[in-house]
Amino acid sequence: MEGIEAGPLLSKIDTPADLKKLKKEELQLVCNELRQYIIDCVSVHGGHFGASLGVVELTVALHYVLNTPYDQLVWDVGHQAYGHKILTGRRENFHTNRKYKGLSGFPKRSESEYDTFGVGHSSTSISAALGMAIASKYKGEKDRMHVAVIGDGAMTAGLPFEALNHAGVSNANLLVILNDNNMSIDPNVGALKEYLTDITTSHTYNKLRDDIWKLMGKLPYGDLQRDLASKLQASVKGMLSKTSNLFEALGLRYFGPIDGHNVLKVTEILEHLKDIPGPKLLHIKTVKGKGYDLAEKDQTLWHAPGTFDKVTGKINKKTFDAPQPPKYQDVFGHTIIELAKENDKIMGITPAMPSGSSLKYMMAEMPDRAFDVGIAEQHAVTVSAGLATQGMRPFCNIYSSFMQRAYDMVVHDVAIQNLPVVFCLDRAGLVGEDGPTHHGAYDIAYMRCIPNMIVSSPMNEAELRNLMYTSQLDETKNPFVIRYPRGQGVMPEWRTPMQKIEIGKGRIIKEGEDVAILTIGHPGNFAVAACKELQKEGLNPAHYDLRFAKPLDEELLHDIAQKFDRIITVEDGTIVGGFGSAVLEFFAANSYKPTVNMLGIPDRIVEHGKPEQLHAECHYDAKAIAEAVRDMVSKNVVKELL
Amino acid sequence: MEGIEAGPLLSKIDTPADLKKLKKEELQLVCNELRQYIIDCVSVHGGHFGASLGVVELTVALHYVLNTPYDQLVWDVGHQAYGHKILTGRRENFHTNRKYKGLSGFPKRSESEYDTFGVGHSSTSISAALGMAIASKYKGEKDRMHVAVIGDGAMTAGLPFEALNHAGVSNANLLVILNDNNMSIDPNVGALKEYLTDITTSHTYNKLRDDIWKLMGKLPYGDLQRDLASKLQASVKGMLSKTSNLFEALGLRYFGPIDGHNVLKVTEILEHLKDIPGPKLLHIKTVKGKGYDLAEKDQTLWHAPGTFDKVTGKINKKTFDAPQPPKYQDVFGHTIIELAKENDKIMGITPAMPSGSSLKYMMAEMPDRAFDVGIAEQHAVTVSAGLATQGMRPFCNIYSSFMQRAYDMVVHDVAIQNLPVVFCLDRAGLVGEDGPTHHGAYDIAYMRCIPNMIVSSPMNEAELRNLMYTSQLDETKNPFVIRYPRGQGVMPEWRTPMQKIEIGKGRIIKEGEDVAILTIGHPGNFAVAACKELQKEGLNPAHYDLRFAKPLDEELLHDIAQKFDRIITVEDGTIVGGFGSAVLEFFAANSYKPTVNMLGIPDRIVEHGKPEQLHAECHYDAKAIAEAVRDMVSKNVVKELL
Repeated sequence: MEGIEAGPLLSKIDTPADLKKLKKEELQLVCNELRQYIIDCVSVHGGHFGASLGVVELTVALHYVLNTPYDQLVWDVGHQAYGHKILTGRRENFHTNRKYKGLSGFPKRSESEYDTFGVGHSSTSISAALGMAIASKYKGEKDRMHVAVIGDGAMTAGLPFEALNHAGVSNANLLVILNDNNMSIDPNVGALKEYLTDITTSHTYNKLRDDIWKLMGKLPYGDLQRDLASKLQASVKGMLSKTSNLFEALGLRYFGPIDGHNVLKVTEILEHLKDIPGPKLLHIKTVKGKGYDLAEKDQTLWHAPGTFDKVTGKINKKTFDAPQPPKYQDVFGHTIIELAKENDKIMGITPAMPSGSSLKYMMAEMPDRAFDVGIAEQHAVTVSAGLATQGMRPFCNIYSSFMQRAYDMVVHDVAIQNLPVVFCLDRAGLVGEDGPTHHGAYDIAYMRCIPNMIVSSPMNEAELRNLMYTSQLDETKNPFVIRYPRGQGVMPEWRTPMQKIEIGKGRIIKEGEDVAILTIGHPGNFAVAACKELQKEGLNPAHYDLRFAKPLDEELLHDIAQKFDRIITVEDGTIVGGFGSAVLEFFAANSYKPTVNMLGIPDRIVEHGKPEQLHAECHYDAKAIAEAVRDMVSKNVVKELL
Repeated sequence: MEGIEAGPLLSKIDTPADLKKLKKEELQLVCNELRQYIIDCVSVHGGHFGASLGVVELTVALHYVLNTPYDQLVWDVGHQAYGHKILTGRRENFHTNRKYKGLSGFPKRSESEYDTFGVGHSSTSISAALGMAIASKYKGEKDRMHVAVIGDGAMTAGLPFEALNHAGVSNANLLVILNDNNMSIDPNVGALKEYLTDITTSHTYNKLRDDIWKLMGKLPYGDLQRDLASKLQASVKGMLSKTSNLFEALGLRYFGPIDGHNVLKVTEILEHLKDIPGPKLLHIKTVKGKGYDLAEKDQTLWHAPGTFDKVTGKINKKTFDAPQPPKYQDVFGHTIIELAKENDKIMGITPAMPSGSSLKYMMAEMPDRAFDVGIAEQHAVTVSAGLATQGMRPFCNIYSSFMQRAYDMVVHDVAIQNLPVVFCLDRAGLVGEDGPTHHGAYDIAYMRCIPNMIVSSPMNEAELRNLMYTSQLDETKNPFVIRYPRGQGVMPEWRTPMQKIEIGKGRIIKEGEDVAILTIGHPGNFAVAACKELQKEGLNPAHYDLRFAKPLDEELLHDIAQKFDRIITVEDGTIVGGFGSAVLEFFAANSYKPTVNMLGIPDRIVEHGKPEQLHAECHYDAKAIAEAVRDMVSKNVVKELL
């Protein structure tokens, strides 16, 4: 692969069949080469890092023991599947990972028969693998294995619990491998984590079991002792087999914990587990970032570090002569602290994204007012609703695509009761390299159809701050969505004084003629660029930043509709049911009949790539907006000529 | 209350303060009177039944011990809260329960200060109460209790697990009362249920703990025994305090199980628990339907039996001279069996609604192909996706409003991978007496914005069968939504031969002039009635049943747009982003400029009542459609005259 050499063993592995030809003694060497290859690739090309390093031995052991792809392997989340991809025919292509038209950063069914289930969001693997196992059981495929590899972070979500509850009574041939590394992207949180720490430290479950049986064996026989022994034996058996272990309580046979970096041990236990039918769980302990010292020490930083010097560990950062605009997430992270200092009702909630959302700053500064609740979007929303009933003003920060997880809680617990929860939806719109599972494409559509909701999107940092300020005012009574994109804004001097925005009020960016461009959110900046370009050609469209998809600025729209009969709407959301449709609904309700061209994310799955590549592909970047204006103007000219 | 007399004690209880005046010895009498009052009311006025009977003692004990509404009580689901409503100032009004403009069938914040959190969907109570408890902790209200009452059925959902995981490390003053009756609406399923049965039967957790300590006490002292005793003591302590109990594993102190029908015992333990800070769980055993013999014996039938003769237990059923149309759910329930007999790839999945969805027939006839997965909509969808990867054709039947729980799984696990899962959304549209939490108002909007989705709705039973038939054909490759309403259809002779419907093809119901009515789903029948009415007045609108909100029948719409400049759309879904908006998008994309009037569920929370009352209120019943046609025709006449 492009200047990166695989080691001597790895370079001969094009499919798992090649791996299987090796002797067991060679497996650790393969692991070393695979680990080095991942370091070599990611340091140059970027991508997720620590997670894949942590499961190198597991990956090798799984493909050595299992008969993939007949045996079915589901990676939860999937950012740990780089080793899996490299071992399953994608080594030579791996330099295209996460690049436009290249390999996906996650397992993907259309990419390989070894990728049994597309992932990206966490916590789906047990349900998916159980579905496969139930199908196999129904078809009579008794020899087929179905394996879900899931991290302890992903286990904090509700979905795996729902799946285990079903698995425990399914009698299907399912193996859950719990990859326990105490981490999500940030350190894992919650009671389950403490429980897992418990059973893997001082009094481990297995050690306890062993101890008791050893002690039993030592007892001299006497009536009392016999009574004790048999009673305790029954009790302890009962406890051990049913109630002593969280997973056994749910009907899965529990094995482990074992060292997940001992490839021979993992191989051996997988060989045993192949012969044990029914639902079972293997608990392995691993270290995220294993084998790259810096990554082991700062696991959050090295989750996805970008490119770096693999020798020195220096992470490459672009340097600039002038101050750069901040990331939107940081504007959120610092602004909520500013607001919370003035308003003691504000609290911050994140489901396992303290770093990604930048809520970490508030968690550090105001630990009793900002919480990481684990990968638990549903709970994050309903606990926010509970807080709001007590007069608190929770800011619940959830990535747009993850908010899909909590849709019912938004409807049922927040909107129906009209509780003033502020939803900050980070990563709204096309997110770039993470691809279709992470694009925040649907939120305008799925949020604006809910009664009582306010749905807004800022065009820049100052607007984000103003919307946040407005959302926490006492006079603001409704649930309030503020959606903003991944990455940087446009204002190096972003720490502007905050001011109230009247809810449902848009603003005029530029007066003009012939065509009105209506934008919401950051694509407003694309429109600004388009207008500059068009000006050179003598075209002079008007540009309005609507700010709110709901409620719409009806006064402004009446004005616009009376002045313009040609309208372009622009949004970084689906054009099916989104902001543009809201504008159409207004025109229909008020019997305006302009020609409307709706730009935004088209009604198909958009793959991964750089945001600017995707904006161009989806035809809503500055160039596309300029084209749309030209097109509308020329069509009208033609019409007038006819 | 309207001819129903409360007993001598109950008739004096207008608030919990009146209850607190009673002696403990009188509490059982209050329970008896409260139980009788519920029986008297529900037998005459209908509503949920078994759940409230099962928690009579708990309800009385809670309001006796707690200082409500300062102490905060959250009822999960809420259909067991009739006793709570009757004790908290709503006895005289209780005859209006579930009636139009009357009391809600569920706790509701706007109805009473004693209703701390609006419910309807299951499994939200722990998150909500935890939010309240965290707010109290932050405010320094140390004496304030926060109690969530949740059934074992509701515990099968993921959300309570997410909440417990947070509660276990929150140090907030939360009491979870696990009301363990082995039931959802249907019998509870899954591994958790078996676990709960385990700890409450032969070797109960507490009995085991007692036994071991008793045995320990009996041991004569000797070196070996001392060794054994101390080691076992440490081990057992460790196990009991940390890992032996599912709930203690998650960091909650566990109490119980106790008999939930012993009001004094429950009162006593609640008094103790008031003094124990931090998160804790009380496990009580109750019998759904307690105190009404028939309801105890057939708990599913008596979940919500309608009105009945309280003496004989005879449930009132209307009788008819002519055959009546079936319920849509039964058309589904029988048709899936017909299809599955021909197509061995079909499987049926329900999240805890075997009776409500009528999947119970298939579960009985084909037990290896139809599953109840518990109250676990997320898992239901993702396990269906897993099945679909193996060539199966899962029919995942979920009520429309409950499908909101699994929105991300629809997007992430099904649609992005374009897997052919069939989603049968029962209870779509306005459901009637269950009210806003249960209205299936948003599904057209939230489903049609997802790429790859087919979104359909049948106008009658034959169409439902044809859509189901079409959805399972090999040539149908996409996820396929079929939404249909609660209650009866329109075809007594419903078992029609099935035939394929071309995907995205609508049909003409009636040719006409001036105005075209475009409907989707069962409101098509309202339009038929409206057209008949209008005919008497000499008005003759055309009527089209589009069948699909996605893909739209573009050929038909081109036809319509060329013939008509006045269009009415009708749907039993929100008019924000729904079917009507899809039609607007088509017109905009194709530069048609008709006048469009969109009828459907308005953009506000619609309360409970009979469906026909709500259809009228929301202005999309036959009368409203006729008015809309008249209005459009007359406006046009005026325009032509000007």
